[in-house]
Amino acid sequence: MRHAIRNGLIIKEEEASLPVTLRSMQYAYSVYEALKLKNGEFVHLKEHLFRLRESARGIGITLKYSDDEISSWLEALRGEDNLFNETFRILLVGKENILFITHDATRSYPDSYYMEGVDCTLYEGERFLPNYKTSNLLLSYLALDDAESKGAFEALFVNRYGYVTEGTRSNFYALRGNRLYTAPDKDVLLGVTRIGVTEAAKDMGVEIVYEPIYVKDIFDYDSLFISSTSMKAMPIRSINGKSVKRSMNTMVLRFSDYVGAWE
Amino acid sequence: MRHAIRNGLIIKEEEASLPVTLRSMQYAYSVYEALKLKNGEFVHLKEHLFRLRESARGIGITLKYSDDEISSWLEALRGEDNLFNETFRILLVGKENILFITHDATRSYPDSYYMEGVDCTLYEGERFLPNYKTSNLLLSYLALDDAESKGAFEALFVNRYGYVTEGTRSNFYALRGNRLYTAPDKDVLLGVTRIGVTEAAKDMGVEIVYEPIYVKDIFDYDSLFISSTSMKAMPIRSINGKSVKRSMNTMVLRFSDYVGAWE
Repeated sequence: MRHAIRNGLIIKEEEASLPVTLRSMQYAYSVYEALKLKNGEFVHLKEHLFRLRESARGIGITLKYSDDEISSWLEALRGEDNLFNETFRILLVGKENILFITHDATRSYPDSYYMEGVDCTLYEGERFLPNYKTSNLLLSYLALDDAESKGAFEALFVNRYGYVTEGTRSNFYALRGNRLYTAPDKDVLLGVTRIGVTEAAKDMGVEIVYEPIYVKDIFDYDSLFISSTSMKAMPIRSINGKSVKRSMNTMVLRFSDYVGAWE
Repeated sequence: MRHAIRNGLIIKEEEASLPVTLRSMQYAYSVYEALKLKNGEFVHLKEHLFRLRESARGIGITLKYSDDEISSWLEALRGEDNLFNETFRILLVGKENILFITHDATRSYPDSYYMEGVDCTLYEGERFLPNYKTSNLLLSYLALDDAESKGAFEALFVNRYGYVTEGTRSNFYALRGNRLYTAPDKDVLLGVTRIGVTEAAKDMGVEIVYEPIYVKDIFDYDSLFISSTSMKAMPIRSINGKSVKRSMNTMVLRFSDYVGAWE
């Protein structure tokens, strides 16, 4: 039987639920994190807990549990369900600080996604409070639903200025010559893997340019890719059904290896 | 003990809950309605069920229950808890069509709110898919929280073009001379009480103008007011702490009486 945590206590997973009469639930007034357990170790735990606290603060919630407390709850759940490789999800609901931890198998992707790249679609919209991981995810749901209905893997958001900010569950990058382009911090989720990608760029002597990547220019870059905790760095094959250049995909795979090792 | 409905079955209210592992719940992929039972009768039931179906359709959910079915569930819950005056909330979650009905006391407001008007604040932001009542309500929560922290009753949204669209749980209007101004339909919730207000205007020979009401002009109108199922038509006394003109508040109260009687 699978378990979960509610405010520090181990419960059965099916007991991890929220009343529909709860105002914080009705208003999607909550934040979350997803993090990996890899070979028995929580990956970038400190960074994820920092971002959880920041997301909470960003919507006016003071997270009242310490990093040590939350870490011990993750560890307790890991032990209870005897886990070694898994993805954990932390959900923090409302000013009342209801905190759930649940877990599920870590997603992995076929090699072809890396060798050939994945298909993406464009979706007009801007995530509300993009720096924070809030539960206000209807736009992301609709965008990903639209992508999947077209057989694509990920949807990329295009903002009111016509530039691509990020994917529904990934950050977005373009390569040209010796430069890595990605959206300015204020417009996107500050992905933990995005930190890894920029570290990799520094190590590889690639210049990082925080600049809008406009839709109108998107087919001019040498390679495009997305990143997330589960994807690492994954090349893009097409945008809205049209093939993109892939002349720097070897470098994308070096980024992927780097962030994989950096875990 | 208070009860609720889940997919047609009467349950205890505390059993009306959603698992935190449910994707539709994690993405706030749901829509809702709030409607009044007044003297034993559901008020504008048909309009509310129409809008529920429209909201669902707007985010890609086909509501699979008929109006007759949902009406019979409302009636069953009314009977079970022996209710006469109450507010009911219908929540429809995901493509899986999990439907909850819960209930709570109908809100009422002191006479002074009508005689003197209420204080409002301005909040920059645009509700995502404003025509639909979705659970993607974080913006509304933050705006109302901000208003309440300043001692105000309601927050009004200001969009990117600098005009006031609607409140967090109300529609917004301005009066000048013989004209009633309210935002174009595409930018706001198509409130059931808003329909009543426009009916009242027609009956009273007031011209309805669907036009932006800009923040920069807001102190030039003769009176301002908001409307909702619970508020009816409620005059505004101040915006961001600055008094507004109230020279047509008698007409606002006529609107309020009209929509009250129209129930």
